[in-house]
Amino acid sequence: MTYRAPINDMLLALNHGAGLLAAVKAGHYGDFDGDIAAAVLEEAGKFASDVLAPLNRVGDEHGIKLSDDKVTTAPGWPDAYQRWTAAGWNAVSGPEAFGGQGLPLAINAACTEIWSASNIAFGLCPLLTLSAIEALDAHGSGELKKIYLEKLVSGEWTGTMQLTEPQAGSDVGALRTRAEKAADGTYRIKGTKIFITYGDHDMTDNIVHFVLARLPDAPAGTKGISLFLIPKLMVNADGSLGERNDIYPSGVEHKLGMHASPTCTMTMGDKGGAIGYLVGEENRGMLCMFTMMNQARLGVGLEGVGIADRAYQQALAYAQERRQGRAAGSKGDGMDAIIVHPDVKRMLLQMRSMTAAARTICYATAVALDISVRAKDAKVRAEAAARGALLTPIAKAFSTDIGNEVAYLGVQIHGGMGFIEETGAAQHYRDARITSIYEGTNGIQSIDLVTRKLAANGGASVWGLIEELSGIVKQVETSNDPAFGTTGAKLRDALGSLERSSKWLLERVTSKPNDALAGATPYLRLFGSTLGGCMLAGEAIAAKSNGDAGDPQRYVTLARFFAENISVQATSLEKTVTDSADAVNGADAVLLA
Amino acid sequence: MTYRAPINDMLLALNHGAGLLAAVKAGHYGDFDGDIAAAVLEEAGKFASDVLAPLNRVGDEHGIKLSDDKVTTAPGWPDAYQRWTAAGWNAVSGPEAFGGQGLPLAINAACTEIWSASNIAFGLCPLLTLSAIEALDAHGSGELKKIYLEKLVSGEWTGTMQLTEPQAGSDVGALRTRAEKAADGTYRIKGTKIFITYGDHDMTDNIVHFVLARLPDAPAGTKGISLFLIPKLMVNADGSLGERNDIYPSGVEHKLGMHASPTCTMTMGDKGGAIGYLVGEENRGMLCMFTMMNQARLGVGLEGVGIADRAYQQALAYAQERRQGRAAGSKGDGMDAIIVHPDVKRMLLQMRSMTAAARTICYATAVALDISVRAKDAKVRAEAAARGALLTPIAKAFSTDIGNEVAYLGVQIHGGMGFIEETGAAQHYRDARITSIYEGTNGIQSIDLVTRKLAANGGASVWGLIEELSGIVKQVETSNDPAFGTTGAKLRDALGSLERSSKWLLERVTSKPNDALAGATPYLRLFGSTLGGCMLAGEAIAAKSNGDAGDPQRYVTLARFFAENISVQATSLEKTVTDSADAVNGADAVLLA
Repeated sequence: MTYRAPINDMLLALNHGAGLLAAVKAGHYGDFDGDIAAAVLEEAGKFASDVLAPLNRVGDEHGIKLSDDKVTTAPGWPDAYQRWTAAGWNAVSGPEAFGGQGLPLAINAACTEIWSASNIAFGLCPLLTLSAIEALDAHGSGELKKIYLEKLVSGEWTGTMQLTEPQAGSDVGALRTRAEKAADGTYRIKGTKIFITYGDHDMTDNIVHFVLARLPDAPAGTKGISLFLIPKLMVNADGSLGERNDIYPSGVEHKLGMHASPTCTMTMGDKGGAIGYLVGEENRGMLCMFTMMNQARLGVGLEGVGIADRAYQQALAYAQERRQGRAAGSKGDGMDAIIVHPDVKRMLLQMRSMTAAARTICYATAVALDISVRAKDAKVRAEAAARGALLTPIAKAFSTDIGNEVAYLGVQIHGGMGFIEETGAAQHYRDARITSIYEGTNGIQSIDLVTRKLAANGGASVWGLIEELSGIVKQVETSNDPAFGTTGAKLRDALGSLERSSKWLLERVTSKPNDALAGATPYLRLFGSTLGGCMLAGEAIAAKSNGDAGDPQRYVTLARFFAENISVQATSLEKTVTDSADAVNGADAVLLA
Repeated sequence: MTYRAPINDMLLALNHGAGLLAAVKAGHYGDFDGDIAAAVLEEAGKFASDVLAPLNRVGDEHGIKLSDDKVTTAPGWPDAYQRWTAAGWNAVSGPEAFGGQGLPLAINAACTEIWSASNIAFGLCPLLTLSAIEALDAHGSGELKKIYLEKLVSGEWTGTMQLTEPQAGSDVGALRTRAEKAADGTYRIKGTKIFITYGDHDMTDNIVHFVLARLPDAPAGTKGISLFLIPKLMVNADGSLGERNDIYPSGVEHKLGMHASPTCTMTMGDKGGAIGYLVGEENRGMLCMFTMMNQARLGVGLEGVGIADRAYQQALAYAQERRQGRAAGSKGDGMDAIIVHPDVKRMLLQMRSMTAAARTICYATAVALDISVRAKDAKVRAEAAARGALLTPIAKAFSTDIGNEVAYLGVQIHGGMGFIEETGAAQHYRDARITSIYEGTNGIQSIDLVTRKLAANGGASVWGLIEELSGIVKQVETSNDPAFGTTGAKLRDALGSLERSSKWLLERVTSKPNDALAGATPYLRLFGSTLGGCMLAGEAIAAKSNGDAGDPQRYVTLARFFAENISVQATSLEKTVTDSADAVNGADAVLLA
């Protein structure tokens, strides 16, 4: 079945849960007109349903091919990419000086969800280009920008990010690709990179590679890494394409999912070295990487949201159609649609509410990152930057965990049919699996949350957020709507667990780092479950008072379900954070036995 | 990498956690010599490592082929099957009167784990044959047994179980396959079955199909279903093989996993009707199915344990070998193996402890089922039967949930390599996915637990079990071993949650069935987490007092980890059971919006 962007849910999350409307009203978005969000999302939804969604299964079945140093994508994909750039979707949030529409990241975040939901393997390509644009815009020389940036913004050329090598995955500092300065000021790069997404393809004339490498005598580790721009085809002075550069796809991976997205081994230097241009300063390549890391991680979190929503829509349709068994107490003769069964309802609600929570967390991250660059007031910008930094690992890890869990339930609702590839539920399950691994594994996100984000300012970012969330919970507690059930009590408990766990970790992050690290993953889950629950409750309250999202009571039920089933886990997770470090760190006795 | 059966862990679980040793001492196993368990498992482990494990990946890559009405299995598979029957592994628990070794189900359960771990798609074939043996042994006529049972026990012929039709999955009563009595007392069967595991293959000369069908004018629903034995090739009076019967594979499924196990659409009646023999009485086919359901569900639970252990072994080896990053506070120059990182330790401990808990629950189920038929005392048998019935849905659903979760973590520990098919971690992840669906979805297991097993005798089976588990917890509480950490307190809390949730559900199962049904899945999880935690604690105590399982402290750490990370979830799950029914049953407002 196809995919329809859930515009009402998305707008409620964007405007109210994530606070876009309030930020616009406060003037933090300059002259951006918040009203255009709805129109952009409507159009994006149409493009996704009409052009991208129909190619999702084709891409999975056909995959990609490598021959004669060239990657060929699945039938229909190059054409869809042309339509994508022609319609301007690549340029939504690109810098206006280089042809972009300069729309907020928050709008692009909602669009990214839509691209990922309709066709996650397709959407991944522009996600990488976006990172390239960001790195080049922030750190590139005027000349490099002039030649490359407009083409990347329009999408006429795509970008790649090349960090990983066989011995250097999570530990980027271990990379060995070499760069040497040539007499003309350019560099010659030799080495091999692995796991390079869209490292080669046939959808554009040229590809702009961003490659991390080491100069001779560079310091060891991450302090000796430089970033280079390496075009696939050299660009002549008049902007026309020139010689083939010495960077080639030498292998493609056979993967569990994302079959349509080429994952390449890239070889540089077989013909003397790839010609590259330094981006930023020598040995400061990691700085350039950090610049774009927030946005890239948020992008992957949105992939989690997108795949979850796609899996949900498909499971819901199946549960409404498939007849099997009868409802408890049913007197009728025929079978009922399986959606009548409470256990099926539970699964669907879990899928929908977890998706909604992850969506709002991701959108709120985007709003914070927007304000951190758009607000006039420096203090507002600084606070928003801290908020964005805090939320980013949660947006990435919690949302992609949820993407996997929801896709799992999507298969489950289909029963035996879910295990059959033609049904399509299994593709979402396979495709989702990489999202909790790439762009920093979810374990690394948890460690980032505890050791950098929580600890950054003595916990101030967390205490500030808890106070805000507490205000939402107060609104639930004082609401007279019985449909909220025990939502207020559950969220209040969860906030208490979040606060105590945060303190416990803060007290140990320096003095007993292994104790804090042992609790990082359950802490991130606790954080996401609490934050998501409060945000959904806030959305329900907003829906009730605004009435602009259809029947508001369904948002109350959704918030209630999440609080009573997901946020409620915070109290148990708190005990895990505070009580299980000894067992974890005493693991050698078990594991090495 | 290959697979090694964890004999020490298995024997500790079997003898102590599951209580085999105590039952043997109490005389419930007749003259069975408990000491032979170790020898059988050692030999099974060798066969699995040498013959089955090497074919696991071949089977996944090659899959099966259907052409000219015949299924061909992967290279090496028919030969491995010959070695399997020649070594006597098919006959471990088969009836002695028909050439079986008559060993307890508990021993066969441990073997089933080993077959599933080494090659789950292979192990599935004898699992189905076992069900066929059970149905035929319990309900078949003397003549049918004489012709077919010995061949099934030895494995010279395999068996299939054919229930499912497109409109009749979980709702077996909706099936439409027709059977008509012929003049000679046999039946002619016409219809189509789907999802038939090993419905055809080239590993044996003959296949014995057990097919559910309806006689003309049979009552509607499950009360009008009869069971028929339909040989692929007719058997002549002298036992030689005769004509091809009218039952053919007409399609095979393209699946997410289990590629080596053919899943067939079976067509009967294109040539006048398949010749079948009635098993049991007319219209009593569901009774025959129920006979073997416990054992089949336990078998699938053991698949969950097996795939979990396989995924764990592979992840552990990778974590010991892969070097990336450094331990907190490390002063060395080089990278450390990733197993030093607390977050990786956490994942490995979670994998190992969840696998161990599921293993013991499954073995305990097997011991109960053994005692229910082997004990001399009728009261002992009846109590064991109730215990076995109670534990079966937990053994099936909790263990297969865990199989999926552990396989997920196995991919995660491999990082980007986990997403690459050649690594092998992804195969376990794909293969595991069906186990929570087939043989009754895990949702159906939960409903069975709440509506039949918990409610069967006013909760007496559950109260009896809680009392036993409470005794174990008391031992932990009074133990002076600080390595238990907060295990005692966590398990005590979990038992309280189990008791309160059980009472809450019992009070509603008849009066408010939808409230009880809404809590079924979290209740089963709560039950498994509590039961598993207590059993692992019991094993740790046994290991300490016996000293027959190597260093006992690793079992203490393992039990502690499970209690502090998994059992601790019981308190949150209790709240979900008791507080979320309104949200679940109010879902229509959300889902149909």
